[in-house]
Amino acid sequence: MQDITKVAVDAMGGDNAPAEVVKGAVDAVSTRNDIKVFLIGQEDAVKEELAKYTYPENQIEVVHAPEVIEMAEPPVMAIRKKKQSSIVVGMNMVKQKEADAFVSAGSSGAILVGGQVIVGRIKGIERPPLAPLIPTEKGVSLLIDCGANVDARASHLVQFARMGSIYMESVLGIKNPRVAIVNIGAEEEKGNALVKETFPLLKECRDINFVGSIEAREIPHGGADVIVCEAFTGNVILKLYEGLSATLIGVIKQGLMSTLKSKIGAALALPSLKKTLKAFDASQYGGAPLLGLNGLVVKTHGSSKATEITNSIFQCVTFKNEDINGKIKDRITDQPIEQD
Amino acid sequence: MQDITKVAVDAMGGDNAPAEVVKGAVDAVSTRNDIKVFLIGQEDAVKEELAKYTYPENQIEVVHAPEVIEMAEPPVMAIRKKKQSSIVVGMNMVKQKEADAFVSAGSSGAILVGGQVIVGRIKGIERPPLAPLIPTEKGVSLLIDCGANVDARASHLVQFARMGSIYMESVLGIKNPRVAIVNIGAEEEKGNALVKETFPLLKECRDINFVGSIEAREIPHGGADVIVCEAFTGNVILKLYEGLSATLIGVIKQGLMSTLKSKIGAALALPSLKKTLKAFDASQYGGAPLLGLNGLVVKTHGSSKATEITNSIFQCVTFKNEDINGKIKDRITDQPIEQD
Repeated sequence: MQDITKVAVDAMGGDNAPAEVVKGAVDAVSTRNDIKVFLIGQEDAVKEELAKYTYPENQIEVVHAPEVIEMAEPPVMAIRKKKQSSIVVGMNMVKQKEADAFVSAGSSGAILVGGQVIVGRIKGIERPPLAPLIPTEKGVSLLIDCGANVDARASHLVQFARMGSIYMESVLGIKNPRVAIVNIGAEEEKGNALVKETFPLLKECRDINFVGSIEAREIPHGGADVIVCEAFTGNVILKLYEGLSATLIGVIKQGLMSTLKSKIGAALALPSLKKTLKAFDASQYGGAPLLGLNGLVVKTHGSSKATEITNSIFQCVTFKNEDINGKIKDRITDQPIEQD
Repeated sequence: MQDITKVAVDAMGGDNAPAEVVKGAVDAVSTRNDIKVFLIGQEDAVKEELAKYTYPENQIEVVHAPEVIEMAEPPVMAIRKKKQSSIVVGMNMVKQKEADAFVSAGSSGAILVGGQVIVGRIKGIERPPLAPLIPTEKGVSLLIDCGANVDARASHLVQFARMGSIYMESVLGIKNPRVAIVNIGAEEEKGNALVKETFPLLKECRDINFVGSIEAREIPHGGADVIVCEAFTGNVILKLYEGLSATLIGVIKQGLMSTLKSKIGAALALPSLKKTLKAFDASQYGGAPLLGLNGLVVKTHGSSKATEITNSIFQCVTFKNEDINGKIKDRITDQPIEQD
């Protein structure tokens, strides 16, 4: 039998906590027996939810954390002050090796700060990037970094490219993943100062399959497997992706519901339409890992439902079994690192 | 009767030149009699296309320009060497005041360089931004800058905000347009170094309606009328908008065509669907103006059809009749300008 992967899950994080988080954890342990979940949160509330289900009880343990970090709290202060919050307690479990990973749908800022301050970076990693999978026509691509390190430097982006390659190869099983840098044109001489500095460094990396620049237009077409960018740009891409998809689907629904004839058409077409649109939904792959830490931290959407929590827990298992952090240590921290 | 607006149109620019460009010009002069179009390009080819139509002949004049700037040519070199190209000839007409505006679907790089080098900036304008309209749930928003000035400074963004406000107010008729800066969070303390520097400067501007930060997610919902950003970010937003819309509509079509039942449904729903999707298409508003020049330069999509050319010509008329450049001179160049 394989090792047990121990996952600390923030039972208080996100819009649908604790109900959906608890359901996601129950679904995960009911599906696989190589997982142990620690549900971190206000004990009474969590246990009340748990009581609704039948599940293998030895696979879930509730860890009491009375405090909650709110979405709007300044992250650095919240991490420092709320030692009994689910985020701080969960991250400390990863730090102490009591858990392999921590999953949270809570405050992005607190998760990013806590990951660096509590869990800590792998030696040699300059900045840990947040790397969600985004849906494309052909499957998914990894967007790295999408919000952790604004105003990053070229050497950071090179590390992002390497970590992203390892992730896509080991977790998604994509051999020799294509790595591209987000740019405003396909030619090498295009770009802002950061891209112009990073491009030749990526070209020199022999251990990644660098395919050059990618224009934002090509991202939804699946033009690359690993999409490297500075966090401000990555955040714009991720949020526009979500916002525009929601808006367009809304506009289409409105069109389908506008006349009696179109309503009948919609009723006939809907099952097939739902199926193809589901393929364009990345939540089935879990949340966004914060890579390069001594352990794994996964940020899921604030609006996560049980499915995203379950899939994020499974993602932690793959991450551990594939020894992503061992690979990052071997392949990245052996490289000469530019100093700040 | 109103003044005649004289528009120089690049008959050789874009994927569908000269046929669609000529058709667009013919449609424009057939609709309005306050326009004179100069079709700039290879005389024989342009006249051959023109011969297909009946139109008020005194409203179109062909100006011979034997050279063509190709899309892949390095822009600075192309503008310098190809003095007889349609872009250089057309821009020189604007410079000499023989035309009020120049419309082109040709090389973006050459148009941006030519606009600055040949037409020239209004005194006091630091950088002329490219400002397309993008579709939203509520109508359109102006995205400024979407590709002209990468690595811009805070003072440039402040000018973009002012010019964008004038444009939306005068050309689109939006009173007191809401101006927002693209950011990775709604709070004032969020952002990269450029946004943090620009935010308080925008807050101080009494002549614009600054509403704060806008996350990319809110752009398609119509969260602001004028969306201010640095050109790299703007270019990513514009191209992702186009790419993702095309991909999603493709995915939806695939869903609608996947079963016999859904095909029947699609046939019933399609007319209504097309109508709502058309509202989500910005080409009806014309191309992207390059603002802050001594005259007007409008860049249309490389794939422009006649409709976009026609609407861009009409856009030039509004621009002139509303005296946008006069307003820019009054409201912007009176402000104290930070020096480089």
